[in-house]
Amino acid sequence: MQRAAMSFYDKLKFNAEGLIPAIVQDQATGRVLMMAWMNRASLEATVTSGRTHFWSRSRQKFWMKGESSGHTQTVKQIAFDCDGDTLLIQVEQVGAACHEGYRSCFYRAVTEDGAGDVITEHQLQTPEEIYGKK
Amino acid sequence: MQRAAMSFYDKLKFNAEGLIPAIVQDQATGRVLMMAWMNRASLEATVTSGRTHFWSRSRQKFWMKGESSGHTQTVKQIAFDCDGDTLLIQVEQVGAACHEGYRSCFYRAVTEDGAGDVITEHQLQTPEEIYGKK
Repeated sequence: MQRAAMSFYDKLKFNAEGLIPAIVQDQATGRVLMMAWMNRASLEATVTSGRTHFWSRSRQKFWMKGESSGHTQTVKQIAFDCDGDTLLIQVEQVGAACHEGYRSCFYRAVTEDGAGDVITEHQLQTPEEIYGKK
Repeated sequence: MQRAAMSFYDKLKFNAEGLIPAIVQDQATGRVLMMAWMNRASLEATVTSGRTHFWSRSRQKFWMKGESSGHTQTVKQIAFDCDGDTLLIQVEQVGAACHEGYRSCFYRAVTEDGAGDVITEHQLQTPEEIYGKK
């Protein structure tokens, strides 16, 4: 009798805190949108719901991307690397992925002299427009 | 008198081990190739040499990508995210980025039923072809 196929979860290595980094990429454009951390529960919620869920290290909190901004991510593919210690998730992104209102969190790049940095993206919305005034 | 521009290094947050994760993306195709960790010295070497350098956590060793395989990465752009705790590096990749001989380390993806995984890339070379027989 053939053994059941190994679950992909068994091929993953969560770190000492039980977390794995997840790179999120816009499937349509190839733009890398963000990197955030998942625990096993948030990865399972991502797989079953088709929306990305993470673990916030600063807030020590389970969260769904877009839960306050509306800027959800619909999962198209979940890949993982040779060492099983990083995820690469292809998504369809609603609006800005970045809480600063940019499409991608990686909106700053180092200048050619290797010293300063420049903003390389157009800001779609201000944080106040996304989250309301504080 | 105007103050000198802030160095981009001052906007980065290295973790408790002095490390920051670096996502490496093929600039020409948009394919995410790998994720590895940098300390300040490897980031400085990356900026000054134009070749990616990392810190291996498992080997506790400074290394240049391609030093044994020849599969170097020429840096085209270094971006960093809103929190300053992740780098996104655009490169020109020689050969396979993955030590398993795939163009990208993310050559496995979760199947639609969310259980198993499949290989999504063509293997360019075997590890033996890259590194020689052990």
